[in-house]
Amino acid sequence: MMLISTTSQFSQGEIIALWSVLGTAIAGLLYAGFLMAQVLREDCGTKLMQEISGSIRTGANAYLYRQFKTIAFLILLLTAALYFTAGEKHIALGRACAFLMGSIFSATVGFVGMNLAVRGNVRVAAAANRKSFSQALKIAYRTGTITGMLTDGLGLLGGTLIFMIYGEKAYEVLLGFGFGGTLLALFMRVGGGIFTKAADVGADLVGKIEKNIPEDDPRNAATIADNVGDNVGDCAGMAADIFESYEVTIVSAMILGWASFGHKGVIFPLLVRAVGVIASIIGTYAVRTKEAVRDAMKAINIGFLLSAIISIAGFSLIGFFYFRFSDKPQLPYWLSLGVPGLDMRPVWTTMVGIVLAVTINRLTEYFTDTHKTPVKSVAESCQTGHATTIITGLAVGLESTVWAILVIAVAILISAVIYQGTNPTFIAYGVSMCGIGMLTLTGNNISMDVFGPVADNANGIGEMAHLNKDARQILADLDAVGNTTKAITKGIAIASAVVAAISLFNAYITDIGTITKQSYAEVASLLSVADHNVFIGLLIGGAIPFLFSSLTIKAVGRAAFLIVKEVREQLKDKDVWEGKKLPDYARVVSICTAAAQKELIRPGILAILTPLLVGFLLKKEALGGFLAGMILSGQLLAVFMANAGGAWDNAKKLIEDGLFGGKGSEAHKASVTGDTVGDPLKDTAGPALNPLIKVMNMVALLAIPLVVRYENSPKVFWCAAIAGIFLLILLIRNPKQTKEELEILKRA
Amino acid sequence: MMLISTTSQFSQGEIIALWSVLGTAIAGLLYAGFLMAQVLREDCGTKLMQEISGSIRTGANAYLYRQFKTIAFLILLLTAALYFTAGEKHIALGRACAFLMGSIFSATVGFVGMNLAVRGNVRVAAAANRKSFSQALKIAYRTGTITGMLTDGLGLLGGTLIFMIYGEKAYEVLLGFGFGGTLLALFMRVGGGIFTKAADVGADLVGKIEKNIPEDDPRNAATIADNVGDNVGDCAGMAADIFESYEVTIVSAMILGWASFGHKGVIFPLLVRAVGVIASIIGTYAVRTKEAVRDAMKAINIGFLLSAIISIAGFSLIGFFYFRFSDKPQLPYWLSLGVPGLDMRPVWTTMVGIVLAVTINRLTEYFTDTHKTPVKSVAESCQTGHATTIITGLAVGLESTVWAILVIAVAILISAVIYQGTNPTFIAYGVSMCGIGMLTLTGNNISMDVFGPVADNANGIGEMAHLNKDARQILADLDAVGNTTKAITKGIAIASAVVAAISLFNAYITDIGTITKQSYAEVASLLSVADHNVFIGLLIGGAIPFLFSSLTIKAVGRAAFLIVKEVREQLKDKDVWEGKKLPDYARVVSICTAAAQKELIRPGILAILTPLLVGFLLKKEALGGFLAGMILSGQLLAVFMANAGGAWDNAKKLIEDGLFGGKGSEAHKASVTGDTVGDPLKDTAGPALNPLIKVMNMVALLAIPLVVRYENSPKVFWCAAIAGIFLLILLIRNPKQTKEELEILKRA
Repeated sequence: MMLISTTSQFSQGEIIALWSVLGTAIAGLLYAGFLMAQVLREDCGTKLMQEISGSIRTGANAYLYRQFKTIAFLILLLTAALYFTAGEKHIALGRACAFLMGSIFSATVGFVGMNLAVRGNVRVAAAANRKSFSQALKIAYRTGTITGMLTDGLGLLGGTLIFMIYGEKAYEVLLGFGFGGTLLALFMRVGGGIFTKAADVGADLVGKIEKNIPEDDPRNAATIADNVGDNVGDCAGMAADIFESYEVTIVSAMILGWASFGHKGVIFPLLVRAVGVIASIIGTYAVRTKEAVRDAMKAINIGFLLSAIISIAGFSLIGFFYFRFSDKPQLPYWLSLGVPGLDMRPVWTTMVGIVLAVTINRLTEYFTDTHKTPVKSVAESCQTGHATTIITGLAVGLESTVWAILVIAVAILISAVIYQGTNPTFIAYGVSMCGIGMLTLTGNNISMDVFGPVADNANGIGEMAHLNKDARQILADLDAVGNTTKAITKGIAIASAVVAAISLFNAYITDIGTITKQSYAEVASLLSVADHNVFIGLLIGGAIPFLFSSLTIKAVGRAAFLIVKEVREQLKDKDVWEGKKLPDYARVVSICTAAAQKELIRPGILAILTPLLVGFLLKKEALGGFLAGMILSGQLLAVFMANAGGAWDNAKKLIEDGLFGGKGSEAHKASVTGDTVGDPLKDTAGPALNPLIKVMNMVALLAIPLVVRYENSPKVFWCAAIAGIFLLILLIRNPKQTKEELEILKRA
Repeated sequence: MMLISTTSQFSQGEIIALWSVLGTAIAGLLYAGFLMAQVLREDCGTKLMQEISGSIRTGANAYLYRQFKTIAFLILLLTAALYFTAGEKHIALGRACAFLMGSIFSATVGFVGMNLAVRGNVRVAAAANRKSFSQALKIAYRTGTITGMLTDGLGLLGGTLIFMIYGEKAYEVLLGFGFGGTLLALFMRVGGGIFTKAADVGADLVGKIEKNIPEDDPRNAATIADNVGDNVGDCAGMAADIFESYEVTIVSAMILGWASFGHKGVIFPLLVRAVGVIASIIGTYAVRTKEAVRDAMKAINIGFLLSAIISIAGFSLIGFFYFRFSDKPQLPYWLSLGVPGLDMRPVWTTMVGIVLAVTINRLTEYFTDTHKTPVKSVAESCQTGHATTIITGLAVGLESTVWAILVIAVAILISAVIYQGTNPTFIAYGVSMCGIGMLTLTGNNISMDVFGPVADNANGIGEMAHLNKDARQILADLDAVGNTTKAITKGIAIASAVVAAISLFNAYITDIGTITKQSYAEVASLLSVADHNVFIGLLIGGAIPFLFSSLTIKAVGRAAFLIVKEVREQLKDKDVWEGKKLPDYARVVSICTAAAQKELIRPGILAILTPLLVGFLLKKEALGGFLAGMILSGQLLAVFMANAGGAWDNAKKLIEDGLFGGKGSEAHKASVTGDTVGDPLKDTAGPALNPLIKVMNMVALLAIPLVVRYENSPKVFWCAAIAGIFLLILLIRNPKQTKEELEILKRA
């Protein structure tokens, strides 16, 4: 089990390339460490600011600690299960370890990212207090970059290491790595999403609506929980989510690359990723603005553009020199640039991925930007009341998801055209390279994303610590830019999840073929929508995202209800209401934490168990249909929810900026309703669908050997049937209320 | 071209059976005529009542007249197109005529049904005024039965006639018949849906919310339009919709029956339907209650039960004596009852259909009934405001659609188990017999459905004509029962649409096989979700119901906005506001009518053009995926919208009955928001998805020979591409405002 021991078919150059990729991954991590030291060196502001930030940090850490404790047992259990389900001993061990590594990496990205975010926020506020816009921007952005480079570095490190150790047998081990990251991301997304929206909705319902006190009012016991939520949801959850997309795309590209182009097909995506890491380091470090200009968005965009140019130039050159075959027929000019033996197809599909990312960005922007028609139409409809606000937002969301899925369909189509005349594995490889292309600039993307909650929190701290007007303006400006960058990355997260899922789905088919020793075409012919089993699977798969969304939305509702009761109770204390005594912030954080942990059990079980049940009860054909249906309706619902939520959110902002009567008007009230409805959709249910579709695909991939082996075993069938009944009962019954919850409910 | 000329392979008994079916169809129509005479003989109440009812009738007729005028041209155009696209001359002529017949029948059902409803309503009110509950119930229910029996009679008549004329060549002609009915239903549903909700939402926004005047207040210029809307939406739209499901299920059962069991497979569904007609006649006539009991729901349920028993006994006996084959191997006991040669499988699958109908009813009831948890939870969430009301309703809707689709999946699975070991055509036949089973009691279903708007309108007339308290109570009771029956039939309409669509989808595959001379298995292998073309089709197909819903919801919004402006303007007239002068009701009706006609163009074109474009641009494989994706997401969205809407509606009723503060409380306001949001979902977008999925399937079926023939024609490809660009532009741009609309908008 030595590095590259089984990969002796590689050329000297390739071995050097692999080591370079590994080196680049480590360089990315070192860069993250360098930025970390830089950020932590910064001034942390006044004592009051530090106190507030301290509360947020304590809450966030308490949440993550409990979250990890909850799932640690499950992770260990699954590690053991993975060890026993694989065939060969050393592969099995590798898979189990890779699973553990994947989940630890994913957790690390989330944990470190969030930890830095809650330290960065107060430093950003302090920089603003020193009246330096450029410093504030730099600290906020670089705090995000730390998470971004961790994602890049760890994702690349894991994939490369596994490949170097296991060579052509890396496939099954990589699956473990992907599954670990994905599963953890699911829990971080669901748990974080429930926490953040329970706190947010709970705080708003009592504060803004019942008591008419402003947001972030220190008397509201849920304020700190709300700020903690921004970090556990938007920062830890999102980072873990993108980390796993990053991981899953590389895993599927490596699997399909091996099946199509052999070792070149595997090494190329690794090289593209390495180029991306270098490009991200340069591009993110370049983000700065002059004090006189103060244009944060422009600075961020310039950094992004720089990274994009470096990255495209880099992988094009690599492809040009690397993808040459002396034994293959000459390709048409546009695929070979006329160079004998050259195959530019992998480069082109990577490029398609970049175009896809840009297009999805533009689409998301169009449907959620305050300057565009959709958000304006939602804002207009606020004038005629709550109902029309909701109806218009729903219509916007429904429409937006159509265009997003059409763009993805076109990307697949282009990949198919590029690989016309080849076997379907190549087309699948093309799609997975699209995914690689989309996520090339993950470093920049995550920087932009995490910048959002950091700026948001800094603004909150500025408000609570009563900073001067100049400082407040700087923070408000950064916060506004953060909202935009956050929204943009959300679109990429969803689209990349779907592209990753489609790649995994293709791997599923390749995999069945390997097991049953059939060709791709033979396996494919089993998965016809004309087959009743596949169709039944399609129906069930399509239904799961709806069920999952319903579960998570209801969970937010239940948790928010507890928060409402608690905040109301605390406000009954006259001293708290008059501002003489601080409310018990920690108690609300603890209630949110407990509720989130409890509520993630059912969606979690649903995600893991359903593909197993479909496979063991209805066979591999139904499982194939299941995956297709789930990807379809998952993507449609996720974008619908994200964009409807985004449109409502920004319609509210438009009105708060003075449109249609501004704050306090009837239109404003309606817009607050829209925003509140959108909250659980865009920050809990919608984002949780990304890891969901990948987890289910991963489970299917891992289970397929067993599904095929026990296809005709009545014992396994009946076990699965009993498990199915258990799942049904679990889903039908509401979760039991804990003693603490009953107390809260009784008291009020 | 003589009756049964080409069917000489039929036994003497079968020919008698066919004539009996024809006779039964005519008997059904005669029964409808008999009831019509009976209802029209009834007393029409006071002059004021007649005036009000007259306004509603005039408005409804004006709407339908304009609707038919708008689509008459399209129907004639398509009749010609169908004539020229078919192969053999006399088949082509038959198909074109059948198309015309299908659309005329569908229109007749809608037109006559609505016309009777607007005459029946005032007679029901008059009966209540004479303090006779039993009379009022009888008139209201029988008014509905007229439409029900028309549906039964015409649907059966058309199918049987075509089969008797064309025998084994009936297939292509039947397609024309199905398409005619479906297309008309689509327009009736979309147009009616936009009309009814524009009027309803518009009336509520100005009346209830702005001016704080009660519903049906005569000063509100949109009141009559609102009542007209109930008829054109719930009555004409729904009747046309169920008529086409009735038609499409028989068409697909006949097609698949021929492909599996030969002539027995065709004659059996016709016989089942005939039994259903007889059962419906007896069951509906038995609906009555004693004056002392006054339990309308019980009376209706007893009638339904009676029909069900007669029907089940009838088709089981027929199956027992008819489905015997001397040349086939003995089936296991549960499929043959041990009788040599007997094949009970078609009977069992029909039975599954009945169980499916009952289960779907119970599910719909569970999620929308005021006594059950979901509606109660929505009502509870009304206490915490508008936003939580919406969130809870969305969660209920999302969950409900999951169970509905699972039940359908189980029904398909059972059909597959029953036909285990046969070729897929038999399984498909089983599914289509499920559809036949579900719609056996269409007579009763439509009676129950149309009973809804008749009772609703009668109640409205009672209110406007200031009837005495006793009469008002009777009418209110009937109205409440009507709401329940209406909701129940909605579930059946959607589920039957999906089952019909699945049958059509199977016919699509059989059809490709006939054209390309391949076996079912060969064709099926082309339609693999592992094929990128199929997958792209799946993505596009899945997106269409979302786009369609967005279009129809926005259309309601635009039309309602016009109504708001108009009603506001009319209320500015002091005489109208003080009740000294009636507002101009007709003008609002006319605005609604114009808006509905204009707004149905884009969804209509979308429905017809998209399958053609997918077929000609991306080939038959993509079209197959398209159909599967569209059925999946169509069903999920339709039930989601219907049940979320139903839950909000009934949560409002719960609160209006006094819960959580009752009328006028904050909870009530939130519940009104929920109801208003639900309106366009449950009465416009949701129901319009039923005909949509069938129309698209029908278009695919009709176009498939051309799609295959021009598969490699660049000319056709580029024509389709240009049409695609045209469609995109049409979809992106909002419809132009007419001169009249601009005037309304300018004035206010």
